[in-house]
This record gives sequence, structure tokens and C-alpha cells, in this order.
Amino acid sequence: MHALGRHVLAEIYGCEFGILNDEKKVEEIMVNAALAAGADVRESIFHKFSPQGVSGVVVISESHLAVHTWPEYGYAAVDVFTCGEKVSPWEACRYVASELGAAHLNATEVHRGLFADPHQKAVNL
Amino acid sequence: MHALGRHVLAEIYGCEFGILNDEKKVEEIMVNAALAAGADVRESIFHKFSPQGVSGVVVISESHLAVHTWPEYGYAAVDVFTCGEKVSPWEACRYVASELGAAHLNATEVHRGLFADPHQKAVNL
Repeated sequence: MHALGRHVLAEIYGCEFGILNDEKKVEEIMVNAALAAGADVRESIFHKFSPQGVSGVVVISESHLAVHTWPEYGYAAVDVFTCGEKVSPWEACRYVASELGAAHLNATEVHRGLFADPHQKAVNL
Repeated sequence: MHALGRHVLAEIYGCEFGILNDEKKVEEIMVNAALAAGADVRESIFHKFSPQGVSGVVVISESHLAVHTWPEYGYAAVDVFTCGEKVSPWEACRYVASELGAAHLNATEVHRGLFADPHQKAVNL
């Protein structure tokens, strides 16, 4: 089986309120996570919500990284989608958890675009 | 158990090459999917890749929608993350599959940010 993409969904708990609520800091962490994982950063957009929380996405040549934070729960939902062999989605997740000062990181990898053979049609999963 | 977010991962197969490779069309479909699902669109960024393929993200007040297309396989990887009760991630996925002229849609919902009680600390999953 050949997967076109790797998608890691990371549940990041026990983070620092101040970091999770700082739009610029969260953006810096996500962009640096992409770079640390070996990705080619194309563009990023981040928004701050009222009364708290940050959402943002980093588009990379190899797909994307996204984050949504709930500072009041010390929680960040992160997902990292990569294609190709060069970039490790796990490295990006570990970097983010570490920079958010997280107590716990629970993550799962989902294989996206599974084909029995890359030149053949899709299989039903 | 209370989940802060709903994250639907959609595998969309058997789509039309011409649509999957058209950056403007894919962006229009994703933004309209967000609107059709009742979301408040903040910003979107899309990129076209060489020799083919489109990646893009729509940031909504309720989280995000992302897409990565492989026109050569007729395949699109879509994920829709929503929070709150107002927006249905499934509605957005169905809209995208329909507009891409897809033959198959296989999707899974992942609950993000599961807390035993929203005012208590996180549980380990």
C-alpha cells in the first residue's frame, strides 16, 4: 500500500496559558516547527479570538500545519499533514509540544490517500 | 465526555482532473463549503503546485478547512475542523465531494480536546 500523505493529529495538554493566548508567539512556534521538520514554508495566517484563543495555519510545499488553542484549558489541537519523505510530521508535533511547555502529547498518525499501487485507482478503506 | 472540536478527515476519490487542478475553482468550492456549513469565513490561502495539484486552507471563526489535491489520481484529501454547535463539518465535506464530481467519499470524525468535564483537566486518551 502506498500513502500519498501522512496526517498526524496531536492533542497537546497542560500548556502555558500565556503562550497559547499569544498570537505572534503561536505563529512563530508553528512556522519554526515547519522549518525544524524540514518543510518549505509558503505562507501562514493566524487569528486571535475573543476573549481568548488562537487559530492558525502554515501552508508548506509539503501540505500544512494547523493549530487551535483553548488557553483556558491549557489545550492545543494541532494537525500536521505532510507528503513526501523529506518532512517528518512527528518532528513538527514534538517541537510544538515542547515550545508550548506541554505536560502531555497524545498523537495519532493517519495515512491519507491510500492506493494499492500509486498508478492504479483508489481502494475503498 | 465533552469534545471541544470535531475533526472530519475525508478521503475523496474519483474526482475530475480539471477541477482538482484549478486553483481558483478549488478555492471557490472550499470557501462555499464553509459558507454552506454555516461557518464564518475569516481568510483563505491557496497554492498551485507544479506540475499539478492544489493546496489550500480556509480559516473560519469555528476553526478550519484544508484541502490537498492529486489530480493525477483523481484524489483530494480534505479535513474540516469545527468547534461549537452551529457548523456541521459533515455538511462541508459532502458539499466538497459533490462539487469535485467525486465518485467516492470515505470520511471519519475524530473528537478533539476530550475532557471529562469542560472545567476540569484533560483526560489521557
